[in-house]
Amino acid sequence: MTVLEKINSPQDVKTLSLQEMNTLAQDIREAILNRVNTIGGHLGPDLGIAEATIAMHYVFDSPKDKFIFDVSHQIYPHKMLTGRKHGFVDSSRLQEISGYSNPKESEHDHFVIGHTSTSVSLATGVAKARDLKGDNYNVIALIGDGSLSGGEAYEGFNNAAELDSNIIIIVNDNEMSIAPNYGGLYKNLAELRNTNGQAQNNVFKAIGFDYYYVEEGNNTEKLIDVFKKVKDTNHPTVVHIHTLKGKGYEPAVVDKETYHWTTPGFLNNKEASVQAETYNSITKDFLLDKKQKGEPVIAVTAATPGVFEFNPEFRNKMGKNYTDVGIAEEHAIAYASGLAQNGAKPVLALMSSFVQRTYDQMSQDLALNNSPATVLIYWGGISNADMTHLCTFDIPLISNIPNIVYLSPVSKEEYLAMLEWSYNQNEHTVFIRVPSTDVVSYETADNTDYSQLNKYKLVEKGEKVAIIAAGNFFGLGRQVKEELKTQLNIDATLINPRFLTGVDFDMLETLKKDHSVVITLEDGELDGGFGEKITRFYGNSSMKVLNFGSKKEFTDRVPLEELYNRYHLTKELIVSDIKGIL
Amino acid sequence: MTVLEKINSPQDVKTLSLQEMNTLAQDIREAILNRVNTIGGHLGPDLGIAEATIAMHYVFDSPKDKFIFDVSHQIYPHKMLTGRKHGFVDSSRLQEISGYSNPKESEHDHFVIGHTSTSVSLATGVAKARDLKGDNYNVIALIGDGSLSGGEAYEGFNNAAELDSNIIIIVNDNEMSIAPNYGGLYKNLAELRNTNGQAQNNVFKAIGFDYYYVEEGNNTEKLIDVFKKVKDTNHPTVVHIHTLKGKGYEPAVVDKETYHWTTPGFLNNKEASVQAETYNSITKDFLLDKKQKGEPVIAVTAATPGVFEFNPEFRNKMGKNYTDVGIAEEHAIAYASGLAQNGAKPVLALMSSFVQRTYDQMSQDLALNNSPATVLIYWGGISNADMTHLCTFDIPLISNIPNIVYLSPVSKEEYLAMLEWSYNQNEHTVFIRVPSTDVVSYETADNTDYSQLNKYKLVEKGEKVAIIAAGNFFGLGRQVKEELKTQLNIDATLINPRFLTGVDFDMLETLKKDHSVVITLEDGELDGGFGEKITRFYGNSSMKVLNFGSKKEFTDRVPLEELYNRYHLTKELIVSDIKGIL
Repeated sequence: MTVLEKINSPQDVKTLSLQEMNTLAQDIREAILNRVNTIGGHLGPDLGIAEATIAMHYVFDSPKDKFIFDVSHQIYPHKMLTGRKHGFVDSSRLQEISGYSNPKESEHDHFVIGHTSTSVSLATGVAKARDLKGDNYNVIALIGDGSLSGGEAYEGFNNAAELDSNIIIIVNDNEMSIAPNYGGLYKNLAELRNTNGQAQNNVFKAIGFDYYYVEEGNNTEKLIDVFKKVKDTNHPTVVHIHTLKGKGYEPAVVDKETYHWTTPGFLNNKEASVQAETYNSITKDFLLDKKQKGEPVIAVTAATPGVFEFNPEFRNKMGKNYTDVGIAEEHAIAYASGLAQNGAKPVLALMSSFVQRTYDQMSQDLALNNSPATVLIYWGGISNADMTHLCTFDIPLISNIPNIVYLSPVSKEEYLAMLEWSYNQNEHTVFIRVPSTDVVSYETADNTDYSQLNKYKLVEKGEKVAIIAAGNFFGLGRQVKEELKTQLNIDATLINPRFLTGVDFDMLETLKKDHSVVITLEDGELDGGFGEKITRFYGNSSMKVLNFGSKKEFTDRVPLEELYNRYHLTKELIVSDIKGIL
Repeated sequence: MTVLEKINSPQDVKTLSLQEMNTLAQDIREAILNRVNTIGGHLGPDLGIAEATIAMHYVFDSPKDKFIFDVSHQIYPHKMLTGRKHGFVDSSRLQEISGYSNPKESEHDHFVIGHTSTSVSLATGVAKARDLKGDNYNVIALIGDGSLSGGEAYEGFNNAAELDSNIIIIVNDNEMSIAPNYGGLYKNLAELRNTNGQAQNNVFKAIGFDYYYVEEGNNTEKLIDVFKKVKDTNHPTVVHIHTLKGKGYEPAVVDKETYHWTTPGFLNNKEASVQAETYNSITKDFLLDKKQKGEPVIAVTAATPGVFEFNPEFRNKMGKNYTDVGIAEEHAIAYASGLAQNGAKPVLALMSSFVQRTYDQMSQDLALNNSPATVLIYWGGISNADMTHLCTFDIPLISNIPNIVYLSPVSKEEYLAMLEWSYNQNEHTVFIRVPSTDVVSYETADNTDYSQLNKYKLVEKGEKVAIIAAGNFFGLGRQVKEELKTQLNIDATLINPRFLTGVDFDMLETLKKDHSVVITLEDGELDGGFGEKITRFYGNSSMKVLNFGSKKEFTDRVPLEELYNRYHLTKELIVSDIKGIL
């Protein structure tokens, strides 16, 4: 029997000997490897935090004492110690437990969390509520693994320091973000590590925290000693622990970036298949070409270069023409505005879910200044993602900001034409929704001057029904056209709108002549999205309009097919809806 | 002839003697007082920065050297020294010059800026572009007066520290934000002031900046000395200057908060009229009542308590049940989620323009957790504001986030009923758009349980035309109804939707029976807003729908009447549009 098998709640941890705790850490690592190898997930961060989590549960009394996990991608060990180990050891039940903090799973989780840098702010609120009510317990935030660079974290630290009561912030310093750390703060962490916490420059002390350093952050005994010291303290305290990301699985220690998050099967050394062309490779080739021509191109990411396959080889080739700002999306946008206004050619790459951090920067720093930056939005669209990582909201988020041009290519050729146009122009802030589909080749050489804003492309002229199919759903639009022909013998019109930010008044007006129904297809939330702009245009006419896209809701790991059925995003369901109003 | 009269460009500053520069500072102060007393504006911040601005222009070479002003509400002296003094001394031309940085006004301004905490990020981009192109000059950001607490500033500092080249950040430490400073960082600034810059704890050094301190930040000579030292430096540098906010106008020195920004006529000691009841006073009374009952209410603001008239008297009465987090809107939202999840009753007050900072926090920290916080959005609606301070975007911003309930009261009674309901419930994250109108009394005692989401209120049942008039525009809706009666003898239906976040399917369905036109009125941007949801509902029917609101555009100090005409937001224009489709 493993030690982990005996653990059903944090109470069971408190009865263990030190030796048993060390064995438990190994059991936990095996369980992490089992889960991630089977269904994928965060590997390096969780392997590194096993001892600290055990020590936390040994010293503190969860759920009375409240643990708040930043990003919560380091929460696997905590889940195993709080009644959810079946999500890691029982291969038939892995999917029952999510990879993130979720109060619906356990009273030991206090928030749904998935984006970075929120824990200190949330914990400050929890602690302040405790004080207002006159209660008495510990509030502990665990932050690190790159999250310290986000502005929300800093705002949280700044205000947590004002609490005249207990808050304990454990800074898990594993020398990494997702990619290597970047920024002045991380220099200070290094200085503190190199001096065993004694460096004169100490950003935490500077803003008012009591400070403890634990060099051996994977040593349960030493962690327990320090946690005991800070338990029940009556003032804001930082415990800086130095851990080894990936500990216990050597490849994850050696290549921390690759094994931060991984897909299933990595233990079996699945051979990487020969890479077909992807929109990632197309983007990288475009950027390298500009760099090689000596142009002032600059690729900018915010801590997730892996999403775009901006691997070390690519980064080395780009050299000073590449900046990873760390987890600091707001800065990335404003930085791009500064770059663009001073004659450089910034191309930002951001995930749809994380661009949510930057509404005000998109509006004030970029759009209001018409700064000619190019921002690439990746992974936009409906998916089976965790509810914290949905990518369905970027069209409502971005497309209603004045001045921004949001383009939605449907093929390789169109994507490249849009990139090239955006890169070379100086009048507009341009966003491009990189297709989430496989690469489709489809010549659109005509009309690649996008400076005539909001000119849609009439792909095939028909009658009765017009299909305006944006981006990822252009293929679905074609299918609907074919289905209309098959089922109803209707030769529908097919339109690629290209622009998500406006309406082609002339084209829509023309459609009134020989169409009675217009449908819109967009791979994202309908509320506030693209289709509603079309519907509003036709509000004063007899044109009937149906909008297809996702509902306004947070979905949590719902299979894509189920969502497509729910939202009527199949050719059969769409044609059926059209029949209903013809 | 004053010294200021002789200054037509920064070149003229460079020829002045120290004594002339000191006289110039006085001339500048008089001009500031003249402008602000005539048309209103930022007083304290600009009075305090006169000497520093003169010294900057004396030492550096604008526009080759690039000054980037944070918030840019401290830019008046810079404007006077760069060819725009007529906007301060010539009473007939004050309106020609805006109160914020604007490249269209002068080559000495590099960005449109109005929100806080952006300057360091923008400057980092400008400097990096300079380096990529192999150019050589100084990039100087002037930040302070509270802006340091914003997360974007911190992200900027963190990454500016990585520049291996020139960037100079002048931290204007006037011991104030708009209201008094809050947060750990400001404790460190105080420590540095108290030690003449020598304190061991130094947050700027900790993250990698070279650091200079100027205690006499209103002493031109000392400023010039230090600026000369750091000019052309090849690494990131902070110059921390200690200035006196309001210098030269004693009331603004004594009461820094009141005179941060002021309306015209303050020099004449305009007597404050007896305050009528306002939505501000209603809100304060509500909060104080909860506090006096011993409830765990907590009012939260982000550095702009004056907007809500949360004056020192109110703050003192609220005591520990009030937190001003400083300029840190993201933290404010996450903090509220922590408070709400732990049983306190947070009521946040935010300006529409500044809630833009928090999309991701609204979505992830609040909505995804259904945290029962109440967020009050002030000043929402179309106005003659500067383009940086528009309040027309909050409905598209907030209303498309799943789970959020965004309420739009039309009267005092309804506002109080909504506040009370939101405060007492535990299921939803609730936003309330505080009316921007005068207080209207209008009994809505029936149906004040808003937990039945998206139930609209049928105010007057009519036929043919239905008017769905939200929030501030409910009064306009009434006017339209009367005008329809007068002009067309139509008894229109009048609906108060109450909810901005959803559609009352039953009521809209019922309208189909005896209405052929529905119009929506909302005080904000149409794209992605409330009305489009109604239009989408009717897309598959023969109902005609007209949406009235503002266009997707940044407007800059355009008179309200002009905007109302542009957007057809008068009863005459609306009825004319209705006639066009009846």
